Amino acid sequence: MNSAEFSLIQTFVREFDSPRAPAGPGDDGAVLPPTAGDLCVTTDAVVQGVHFSLAHFRFEDIGHKALAVNLSDLAAMGAAPSWFLCSLGLPRRFGKREVSALGRGMSALARVHRIQLVGGNISAARELSVTLTAAGEVPRGQALTRAGGRSGDWLYVSGTLGEARLGLRLLGKGTRTGFAKRQLRPVVRLRVGQIARRFGRAAIDISDGLAQDLAHLCAASRTGARVDVGRLPLHPAVRRMKEAIRWALAGGEDYELLIAIPPEQGLHFERECTKSGERVTRIGELTSTDTVAFWRAGKILPSPPGFDHFE
Amino acid sequence: MNSAEFSLIQTFVREFDSPRAPAGPGDDGAVLPPTAGDLCVTTDAVVQGVHFSLAHFRFEDIGHKALAVNLSDLAAMGAAPSWFLCSLGLPRRFGKREVSALGRGMSALARVHRIQLVGGNISAARELSVTLTAAGEVPRGQALTRAGGRSGDWLYVSGTLGEARLGLRLLGKGTRTGFAKRQLRPVVRLRVGQIARRFGRAAIDISDGLAQDLAHLCAASRTGARVDVGRLPLHPAVRRMKEAIRWALAGGEDYELLIAIPPEQGLHFERECTKSGERVTRIGELTSTDTVAFWRAGKILPSPPGFDHFE
Repeated sequence: MNSAEFSLIQTFVREFDSPRAPAGPGDDGAVLPPTAGDLCVTTDAVVQGVHFSLAHFRFEDIGHKALAVNLSDLAAMGAAPSWFLCSLGLPRRFGKREVSALGRGMSALARVHRIQLVGGNISAARELSVTLTAAGEVPRGQALTRAGGRSGDWLYVSGTLGEARLGLRLLGKGTRTGFAKRQLRPVVRLRVGQIARRFGRAAIDISDGLAQDLAHLCAASRTGARVDVGRLPLHPAVRRMKEAIRWALAGGEDYELLIAIPPEQGLHFERECTKSGERVTRIGELTSTDTVAFWRAGKILPSPPGFDHFE
Repeated sequence: MNSAEFSLIQTFVREFDSPRAPAGPGDDGAVLPPTAGDLCVTTDAVVQGVHFSLAHFRFEDIGHKALAVNLSDLAAMGAAPSWFLCSLGLPRRFGKREVSALGRGMSALARVHRIQLVGGNISAARELSVTLTAAGEVPRGQALTRAGGRSGDWLYVSGTLGEARLGLRLLGKGTRTGFAKRQLRPVVRLRVGQIARRFGRAAIDISDGLAQDLAHLCAASRTGARVDVGRLPLHPAVRRMKEAIRWALAGGEDYELLIAIPPEQGLHFERECTKSGERVTRIGELTSTDTVAFWRAGKILPSPPGFDHFE
């Protein structure tokens, strides 16, 4: 590490609240006290030209999104966020201004969800990349995984689907507001995940589109599924588009949760979500078949694009 | 994640031993049981063109080195390795063969040090990068940091210095054996670190050269230091070079440990290292000044390159 890197690290860390001792950036690593529950850990990267374009994303957006995609994995496990580490790959043309803006976008979201930056590093790189590792806690043995679903479980999704895809189109037209925010600043469903952990059996976050992520959940749970496309929660602005169903099933970047709940827990789950002001919609159920079927008006739809069952 | 990425992840994971449940790659994240001690976590990246060149490094080497640099941070904290996550940035021209070789180099070192791969992800990228987060455990409150040193503590280094720099020259000449291995496949001093944790007060791993990393330790400990250059542990092949001292002080990539031990513990520390077959050399001491001084034959040397005290 040279002094320029060291100074950039300080610039970045300054955007964050100081962590409680003994955790903290600046040493060879962070030291974290034992947890009472299980620790859920996940790592995900956002890379320039792959996950974002600098033509549309500001550095604050990139900072937000890098943390959001990791928090979304914690949400899908039902975990309460604890700490994270941030590794930046930084082209030489970027300096303090950019690193500071990136830190600002990330720390704003970190404050909302009470997760602490405890370490990281900065490397020179040809393209901008932000790789995070995030950890959260669940009571022992209670982490939600993709694998716990059983035939007959009700399928729920949080929020609404397809808006991120609409947002991508708007971004392409130079709009940064409205649905474009679903791309730039995804919301993370941590509260839904923690409720799902109490009532549910399996969950996954929808990053690649409902069809593909449902297929992952079914493969891990060794079930099939049946989804009633008419029940998909769509904003009227999405519902109006001719691509509505395709975007809802295969749009990607929604960062909503897909959750399998035993039927006898369904109404309890819905009630707790309503109490917390979180929208969830029952869209279908897990089945004992080996296929994922999307129904509409009594007919099975052909596989949507992005659909990749048991691959 | 598309099916090509999914298949590359499977290729990579297959190179590793299966982790014990409930940990494991493939879900939104890994689930890890509570630890009795503190958890030390670190993240570090190796990036093509910055930390390695594909002209000299094979994919096995890159896999080894990416894990080694992270394990070295755990060694400096005195931690016993537990688990790690691996995030790959992979140019599209690389496929199964390269991912498999990278995993092979990494898993061989993981087996030696009994650390388990519990998750990760693969992203497309323009250049190859490997970003790891590694965790290890220490008894509660006993992690070594850079900040614990006190004036009067004896300074020790593990192994020998400057060979990695000699190795870099050899690599440039097309040699992959001998000292070139110090660049390609650095050894990690985990055993020395765990002994140091029992007897020492502060430690850091030497990745940027002894001079710079000693300055970091001194800054964190709020001490100065005095090093007797005549005591530096050098292989005869390095000692012969006219650059010997510069390479030993500022060569970088040695991944040896620098450790501050209270004088009354010095001999106990040395004895335990000897018993474990680990070489350590006393090279000087921490002082109450605010400078780091390198002495040779009764004179203070001018600051070596890479020396960057209190920056």
